[in-house]
Amino acid sequence: MAAVTYEHIKTCTQSGARLGRVHTPHGTFETPVFMPVGTLATVKTMSPDELKELGSQIILSNTYHLWLRPGHDIIREAGGLHAFMNWDRPILTDSGGFQVFSLSDMRKITEEGVEFRNHLSGEKLFLSPEGSMEIQNDLGPDIMMAFDECPPYPAEHDYMKASVERTSRWAERCLKAHKRPDEQGLFGIVQGGEYEDLRRQSAEDLVSMDFPGYAIGGLSVGEPKDVMNRALEFTTPLLPDNKPRYLMGVGSPDSLIDGAIRGVDMFDCVLPTRIARNGTCMTSEGRLVVRNAKYARDFRPIDENCDCQVCKNYSRAYIRHLVKCNETFGYRLTSYHNLYFLVNLMENVRQAIRKDRLLDFKEAFFEQYGFNKKDAKNF
Amino acid sequence: MAAVTYEHIKTCTQSGARLGRVHTPHGTFETPVFMPVGTLATVKTMSPDELKELGSQIILSNTYHLWLRPGHDIIREAGGLHAFMNWDRPILTDSGGFQVFSLSDMRKITEEGVEFRNHLSGEKLFLSPEGSMEIQNDLGPDIMMAFDECPPYPAEHDYMKASVERTSRWAERCLKAHKRPDEQGLFGIVQGGEYEDLRRQSAEDLVSMDFPGYAIGGLSVGEPKDVMNRALEFTTPLLPDNKPRYLMGVGSPDSLIDGAIRGVDMFDCVLPTRIARNGTCMTSEGRLVVRNAKYARDFRPIDENCDCQVCKNYSRAYIRHLVKCNETFGYRLTSYHNLYFLVNLMENVRQAIRKDRLLDFKEAFFEQYGFNKKDAKNF
Repeated sequence: MAAVTYEHIKTCTQSGARLGRVHTPHGTFETPVFMPVGTLATVKTMSPDELKELGSQIILSNTYHLWLRPGHDIIREAGGLHAFMNWDRPILTDSGGFQVFSLSDMRKITEEGVEFRNHLSGEKLFLSPEGSMEIQNDLGPDIMMAFDECPPYPAEHDYMKASVERTSRWAERCLKAHKRPDEQGLFGIVQGGEYEDLRRQSAEDLVSMDFPGYAIGGLSVGEPKDVMNRALEFTTPLLPDNKPRYLMGVGSPDSLIDGAIRGVDMFDCVLPTRIARNGTCMTSEGRLVVRNAKYARDFRPIDENCDCQVCKNYSRAYIRHLVKCNETFGYRLTSYHNLYFLVNLMENVRQAIRKDRLLDFKEAFFEQYGFNKKDAKNF
Repeated sequence: MAAVTYEHIKTCTQSGARLGRVHTPHGTFETPVFMPVGTLATVKTMSPDELKELGSQIILSNTYHLWLRPGHDIIREAGGLHAFMNWDRPILTDSGGFQVFSLSDMRKITEEGVEFRNHLSGEKLFLSPEGSMEIQNDLGPDIMMAFDECPPYPAEHDYMKASVERTSRWAERCLKAHKRPDEQGLFGIVQGGEYEDLRRQSAEDLVSMDFPGYAIGGLSVGEPKDVMNRALEFTTPLLPDNKPRYLMGVGSPDSLIDGAIRGVDMFDCVLPTRIARNGTCMTSEGRLVVRNAKYARDFRPIDENCDCQVCKNYSRAYIRHLVKCNETFGYRLTSYHNLYFLVNLMENVRQAIRKDRLLDFKEAFFEQYGFNKKDAKNF
């Protein structure tokens, strides 16, 4: 029995979006789903109880960061990430690849793996498909990711082709090195940038290896939104219907809806918590920068249409005061609200799929949020 | 009917400590009590729900800080501190005096009040008894404090005598300026340092003004513990039995017990939350600096004898990891534990008073904590 399985419930006749469930050793989550990011075994400022209260079904943690601090050996000794951080619902970890490519200095890519410098200590480190699997087996998430090469955007076709082929070879090595396939589902990552032929090649390679799920990597890395949407349009049909599909690093409200419409089941992004720590909130009427002076005497909730615990109990004026004073409770409140906003958005997306009206939902949401305006302030 | 009244339940026959209840417009709290400090309308890192969960019956906020940010007018418009910060239990605010004397630069004391510079902006400001009352009337706490002069330690007898006399004159002005005596109880502050004659003079002056409660100020300002204990011994008998007694700025476990034994009912201090943000925890066996390397693989709770939510769910290793990574959730966990430790200590103190055995309790507690050791690491 595979550790991770996908149950398809229905497809929205209006949009083509999928409603489903993913079953894991730590329980089931409904898709499409947004996964809050807990880089260092904590979703910044939040407690596990709060994440559950706001409806998080699964969270993501970062292999690269946990490898450096506190070290995967300590987390293994603690009984794995779930025990270490007191989270008993599903966890997904990335492979460390993206961080190695984006955070570290002086990286050198060889067929064997990537040599780079620790962004904290400057120490020389090496990460390979086998190393990533060993770390993720120690961390013990329900879903782990294959170690892939993450090319920058834009990349030339030739460079991307070589990268896709290396990612496929590394995926094979990941499958072989993965020691706990009955307890942890390993997802392959389709690369290929905006090139349809390379996405096809990557998908075919990986699908032939029969992963329990597939991620779409290399998007949301600086390309325009229509490039991302087009890439999704020609990539998701290449993936099997009976496996979950995960679009990595996407968390703006419009992209979540557009991704679901293109057949994506899972999303993650630091966006809601990162902007929260800057005093920026997502609301049903668009972005609200609560630290602005105009909210000093505004005793309304962050979002008058929101029924989260923050909007029920706290005013813009209070939250602005906390944020201006750099009080961490302020960042808790904005983080909670933003995560609730996205988790609740996905609940609404799932309901719209159930009713075969996700395109109608999108239109109404975009209109109210302001995404249809020329000068829309996006994230 | 006074806004704040004291109900005496019993006196410990072994120690002389008092068990009581203080009734306020936002409910009743049991004494002796420890009050967590929420300087800027938030107990740093904590939510109101968490404070209730760990047993906080009343919190303290700082008039000086709230006057500067966000401004008492904004809090008045919000409906007062309780509504602004979503805390429906009793609140006590200090007068701002201590902060004016300890935080601000270039202060100039006259009979009228104190001129000083805002520690944030450098702006010239003036605080008087009337000003402090106006601000505290706007903030709307259940208990407010008279504006007093806070002399440094040590101070000469002559200086202290003049200061005590000014504090008495200012107390009269506070009583006159206080606009909401039916809704907010105003406490007088007995000063006089370590001088018995001046404590007597100050207490007699203030008791004649019939405040609903009395604070003992000017202790825990750098003097040795035996000086503080002796000052309490000759001061509390000068205060009326039917009013609560509040020892300002005291929060180390030994001083809380020693204060209760000397007839004190209320205490506050930033100590538990301040040391928590430095990774230091109070435990039944003494101080534990959780950020130390030796806890990296220690999967025991902070305090094996503690039944708080933190000790039930999180390990030293996890908390150390968070603190080392400067993750705010780590500071939430240490803050929660430390506040629980003191709140629970006071619950144990109240039970010991009920059983007429507070001296026995003290001896056992000091022994286990290590306060009896010569090299005891205190706070």
